[in-house]
Amino acid sequence: MSELSMDLIRRAAETLKAVARRTDMIFAPKLSVNSQVYLKTENLQITGSFKVRGAFFKVSTLTQEELDHGIVACSAGNHAQGVALSAQRAKAKAIICMPDIAPISKIEATKSYGAEVHLVPGTYDDAGAYAKGLCDERHMTFVHPFDDPKVIAGQGTVGLEILEQLPDVDAVLVPVGGGGLISGVSYAIKHLKPSCRVYGVQAAEAPSMLRSIEAQDKLTLSTVNTFADGIAVKHPGDLTFELVNQYVDGIVTVSEDEIAAAILFLIEQRKLVCEGAGAVTVAAMIYDRIPELRGKKVCCVLSGGNIDVNILSRVIYRGLQANGRRTELRLALPDKPGQLAAVTAIISRAGGNVIGVSYGPSAMETALASCVLSLQLETRDFEQIGRIHMDLEAAGYTLVR
Amino acid sequence: MSELSMDLIRRAAETLKAVARRTDMIFAPKLSVNSQVYLKTENLQITGSFKVRGAFFKVSTLTQEELDHGIVACSAGNHAQGVALSAQRAKAKAIICMPDIAPISKIEATKSYGAEVHLVPGTYDDAGAYAKGLCDERHMTFVHPFDDPKVIAGQGTVGLEILEQLPDVDAVLVPVGGGGLISGVSYAIKHLKPSCRVYGVQAAEAPSMLRSIEAQDKLTLSTVNTFADGIAVKHPGDLTFELVNQYVDGIVTVSEDEIAAAILFLIEQRKLVCEGAGAVTVAAMIYDRIPELRGKKVCCVLSGGNIDVNILSRVIYRGLQANGRRTELRLALPDKPGQLAAVTAIISRAGGNVIGVSYGPSAMETALASCVLSLQLETRDFEQIGRIHMDLEAAGYTLVR
Repeated sequence: MSELSMDLIRRAAETLKAVARRTDMIFAPKLSVNSQVYLKTENLQITGSFKVRGAFFKVSTLTQEELDHGIVACSAGNHAQGVALSAQRAKAKAIICMPDIAPISKIEATKSYGAEVHLVPGTYDDAGAYAKGLCDERHMTFVHPFDDPKVIAGQGTVGLEILEQLPDVDAVLVPVGGGGLISGVSYAIKHLKPSCRVYGVQAAEAPSMLRSIEAQDKLTLSTVNTFADGIAVKHPGDLTFELVNQYVDGIVTVSEDEIAAAILFLIEQRKLVCEGAGAVTVAAMIYDRIPELRGKKVCCVLSGGNIDVNILSRVIYRGLQANGRRTELRLALPDKPGQLAAVTAIISRAGGNVIGVSYGPSAMETALASCVLSLQLETRDFEQIGRIHMDLEAAGYTLVR
Repeated sequence: MSELSMDLIRRAAETLKAVARRTDMIFAPKLSVNSQVYLKTENLQITGSFKVRGAFFKVSTLTQEELDHGIVACSAGNHAQGVALSAQRAKAKAIICMPDIAPISKIEATKSYGAEVHLVPGTYDDAGAYAKGLCDERHMTFVHPFDDPKVIAGQGTVGLEILEQLPDVDAVLVPVGGGGLISGVSYAIKHLKPSCRVYGVQAAEAPSMLRSIEAQDKLTLSTVNTFADGIAVKHPGDLTFELVNQYVDGIVTVSEDEIAAAILFLIEQRKLVCEGAGAVTVAAMIYDRIPELRGKKVCCVLSGGNIDVNILSRVIYRGLQANGRRTELRLALPDKPGQLAAVTAIISRAGGNVIGVSYGPSAMETALASCVLSLQLETRDFEQIGRIHMDLEAAGYTLVR
C-alpha cells in the first residue's frame, strides 16, 4: 500500500503514452436531466477496457530477468487481454490461465495478442491455484488483476485524465469489482481535488466491496450471479479494500435489469457499446441512486465494452421488453377458419407490428377445442400494449397466462 | 457551386466550434490486415450524425429576418435532427416535414429538439412538395439536406478534421447518399492534399450517384431498397453531382449483408454503434472493394449511428448467422417418446447451445406419422454447424429443407 503514490501514478501516465488511448470524454445530454453527465469512454480503450493501463504499467516495471522468465495471469476477461497485449509489447512470454468453461471468444481474443492460454478444469479459483503453481515452478511473475500497487497506479491514470478533461467535475462514478480501478481513480482524485466526490457502483448480485465496507471487514460472498462478468468478484483485495475504505465516499448497487437498460440507453443515445460492468455507473444515474448528485457535474466511467454479442442481443431484447417496445402475447383461439387473420388485423389497427408467430394445438390450460396463438410484437410503449390487450378482449379473445 | 470555397469551409469550422464535437479518430487494428485503417467517428457526433454540421452552418448564415420567419426541412432522418437542433440554438422556429409513415422514434427525436413535426400523407416526395409549399406561403427558409453550398461547406469540416488528425492519410472513404458529405470532404481534401484519394461508398441497392457518374448524367432510380436509410437516395443533387464528378476518385458499392456484417464488426471490435449508412465504408474495407488501398493509410468515415434498435437486433442476428454463430435446424422426428431429449443431447455433445425450440405436428412435406422440430442454436462457426448436421444424420435423423 505504501508503494502507491501520486508520483507512481504520474509515472504510469508517462509510460502509458506508448500504448493506451487517451479516451474521449463525451457529454450525455439525455442523462443530464437532473445533473450534467459526462462519460469517460474506456470502452473505447485498446483491448476494449481500462485493464490494459494497469497491466502495461506493471509489466513495464519488471526487470529484464523477470521478463525473460515470463508473465502469468489468471482471467477469462479484460485483464487477460490487457496482460497479453502488454507482454506482447514487452516481448515477454505470457501464460493466461482460464477455467476451461471460458467462452471461445475470450480465448481467441487473448490468443490474438500472442499469449499462451492454459485451460484449467474447474472454477476460477482452481485456475488461480494452477497459475500460482506455474509461477513458483518456472519463476514467472504473476500479474494480479487488482491487488497490486503498480496495477492500481496504472488504473489511476484514468483519474488524472478525468481531471484534465473535466477540471470542474463534482463527482466521479466508478464500477467496482475487485476494486483496482476505483482505488487508483479515488487516490488520484482525492489527492488532486479533495472536494470531488468518488462513488463506487456494484452489481446488486455481486456486492462484495459494499458488504465488506459495511462490515469493516473483508468478506467473501458465497455466490455472485450477474451478467456483468467484469465485476463478478467474490472478495475484495487487501490493498483495494483499504484504499476504498479511505478514499471512496460511498458505494451503491444496481440490478440486472437496470444494467440491461443502461446498456440499451448507451447504444441508442450515445452509440456506445458497453459490457455490463461498464454500464453500471450509467444505470446508477438513470435510476437516481445517488440523490446528492442532482445539479452537479458528474463523470461516469464506462470501464469496458467487451460484451458477447449473443448476450448483447438478449440484453437489447430484454431492454426493449422493459421499455414496452417488445411484447409477447398468447391467445386461446377457437379452432375455426379466419381467426389468425382477425387477430392480426386488430393488432395492426392498434399500431403493433407482428414479428413472430407460433400457432399450435391447445395447451393444457385452455379448452380442448381451441388452439394457442403465440405472437411476438414490436410496440411503441406500455400504453399501446394495453390498448392491444383491450381491443383483443373487446373482440372476445382470451389472453392466456 | 461557385459559392463553395475553402474560405467558406474554414468559416464553417469556426462557426461549428459552438455546437459540433470534434469527433475522435480511432485506429482499427483488426481491420488493418492489408491497410492501416482509422475510423472518423461521426456516429459519436451530437444528434448521432455529421448532418448537424451542414445544417448548423447553413442556419448560422441566415439573416435575422429569415430566422424570424422560420426554417423548413423535409427529412425523417438525421437531417431532421440536425436542422431541429440548429434552429433551436438559433432561437428560430423549425417545421420538419416527414412522410406519415415515419417511425415514432425519429419523430420523437426531432420533437425533442423543439421542432414542430408535420406528418404528410404519402411518399417522401409528397412531404417535399408540402415543405416547399410551406416555404412559399409563410416565407420560411428551406434547408436542403445536401444540394446547398453552405450545407456542403459544413460537411466539408469533416475533411479538415481528418487532415488535422491524420496528416499522412493516403485515402478517405465516405458514404454517399445525396452526396453532400462527400462533396464537402473531397473538396477540402483535394484542395489541401491533392495526393490523397477520396472514394465514395454506396449501398448496392441504392447506387444513384454511381450510376449517374457512369452515365455522366443525373439519373433517377425507380426504387431504392436498402436498410441503410441514411443513403437511400434516388437522385443526386445538381451541385453534388458536379462536385463528385470533379473531385472523387471512384465509387464502389456494398451489399445489404456486407453492411450488416460491418455493423456487427464495429460493435464487436470497436464498441461503436453505426447505422447502415454509417458502416458502408467499413464494409468496403472488410470486403476489399478497393484493392489499390492495400498497404495504405486509410480513413473510413462513420457517418452516423442512428439505427433503430429493433433493426439493430435483427442485424446482429443476421450477422451472427452470416458468421456461423447462430443457426436454425428443422428435423422430422418419428412421433415417439424421447426424441427431443435424444436430439438435444447430440447437439450439446457437439458444443451447440439450444436457445429456441418449437415442436409441432407434421408439416406437409414430411411423413404423416412424424413431428417437426425447429431449433435455434448458438454455435461457434460453420465447422461446428456441419458437425452437428453430420452427427444428427449419423444418428438417423432427417434434416428438413
